[in-house]
Amino acid sequence: MNSRPRAGSCANTECGLRIEPFVEAELTCDAFLGGKVTIRQPRDGYRAGVDPVLLAASVMARPGQCVLELGCGAGPALSCLAARVPGLSLTGVEIQPAYADLARRNLADHGFDAQVVCADIVDLPDPLRSATFDHVLANPPYFGPGSRIGSEDAGREIARAGRTPLSDWIAVAARRLAPGGFATVIQRAERLPDLLAAMTTHLGSVECLPLVPRAHRAARLVLLRGRKGGKAAFRLCAPVVLHRGNAHPGDADHYTPQVSAILRDGAALPFPTA
Amino acid sequence: MNSRPRAGSCANTECGLRIEPFVEAELTCDAFLGGKVTIRQPRDGYRAGVDPVLLAASVMARPGQCVLELGCGAGPALSCLAARVPGLSLTGVEIQPAYADLARRNLADHGFDAQVVCADIVDLPDPLRSATFDHVLANPPYFGPGSRIGSEDAGREIARAGRTPLSDWIAVAARRLAPGGFATVIQRAERLPDLLAAMTTHLGSVECLPLVPRAHRAARLVLLRGRKGGKAAFRLCAPVVLHRGNAHPGDADHYTPQVSAILRDGAALPFPTA
Repeated sequence: MNSRPRAGSCANTECGLRIEPFVEAELTCDAFLGGKVTIRQPRDGYRAGVDPVLLAASVMARPGQCVLELGCGAGPALSCLAARVPGLSLTGVEIQPAYADLARRNLADHGFDAQVVCADIVDLPDPLRSATFDHVLANPPYFGPGSRIGSEDAGREIARAGRTPLSDWIAVAARRLAPGGFATVIQRAERLPDLLAAMTTHLGSVECLPLVPRAHRAARLVLLRGRKGGKAAFRLCAPVVLHRGNAHPGDADHYTPQVSAILRDGAALPFPTA
Repeated sequence: MNSRPRAGSCANTECGLRIEPFVEAELTCDAFLGGKVTIRQPRDGYRAGVDPVLLAASVMARPGQCVLELGCGAGPALSCLAARVPGLSLTGVEIQPAYADLARRNLADHGFDAQVVCADIVDLPDPLRSATFDHVLANPPYFGPGSRIGSEDAGREIARAGRTPLSDWIAVAARRLAPGGFATVIQRAERLPDLLAAMTTHLGSVECLPLVPRAHRAARLVLLRGRKGGKAAFRLCAPVVLHRGNAHPGDADHYTPQVSAILRDGAALPFPTA
């Protein structure tokens, strides 16, 4: 983490975490799921896009279940999941105090049953270390430890290029799952080999759902799911196509009907069974 | 390898290899690539389907290059590759003497420049151990060591449930590649995690091309390619769809135009670059 800390960041450059709470002027208020969810997030820091929305859509939680998100940021994935599935008990873990604070506010504003713990996922506090969950989800940093992604914002840098190897994210997720529980992760397709190795080490019944920008293109992202104690063989599902057509027409998003239903209407994105 | 050896198999049940040459009455003569290639293969033993044809189609060899196939069976993949790309120098390795013999006859009948070595891929004879190749291809057994697939035919059992772990197949392929050379493997999609782990251990620029029975279905097979010394990130390509429509209409194959061109006309199946 070589970025110089900015105002509000931890003064320790070895840390680089955003500690001081964001002030209102630093924040924007962004609508997800066609306005069902509103998320305060830093204008210049790490900002949620469609990835946590797709992640949340793919988690097949049922009302009353317990859900843990590792690295919840400002809480967009937990909020979108809770907006789709009522009656969940939500826990988020976020290493950056300022983002944990935002997540708490965002979840509380929607009235969701949620606690957010500010902690490093590889050093969880005691109560969490003895808790188990029906679902664990995570959108781990897209670049590995040691990557330089050139962000000027230290908090954004932490969120994009983590210090924790992917294998640790999966190991922690697997430890926190109840028997039969599911871990679901979204990640860049380039990192599928690492992610798959970690998933098959710690979990069973692993499935990969590729997300492609357009039909007949290579995957940009993958959703990976594994089940604690699962015995089924690995499955490589048919890809989900994000955009219609062959090119990006200006700034219009032109999502496919399936993805538009997820992003605008809060539809689920089940892993296909065929 | 628990099958009882049949006539012509090695008497040693620990071996189970088909040693005695097939006699004509045991063989069928099957056309591939719309009749460009004819392969003698045992009526009751391991029989080539479309998989070695798709494998061969995906190998982007250029005239004059050296190509090695590990586990060549009766030689369908090498024959199909040689029919598409003239002027290749072909080497096949096959552990079962009777199949190695068939491969020699099949390749010689077409006039291809080929040698077939009867050997275990993990114990190659000296001349091969010092040779390098521009391309190595393999269609390793689809079931791992220790699998019981219930075949009555010992030779078929060897070809379907190998004794050699997938990781050894890839390690041997990588060792036999010249710098910048490509290894290409076809395998059941269920084994992608193992295959990917082996590929990324020994090779770079790894790419996965899923083969799906029909549109919007999970992959049944994968083509995996890695490059010796390659530095590019992993790529998960858009799937190739084998059959048209949503169900298998009787015995008609109803291949998609792309796959029909490969199987009937000898077209190539390049890994897509988009």
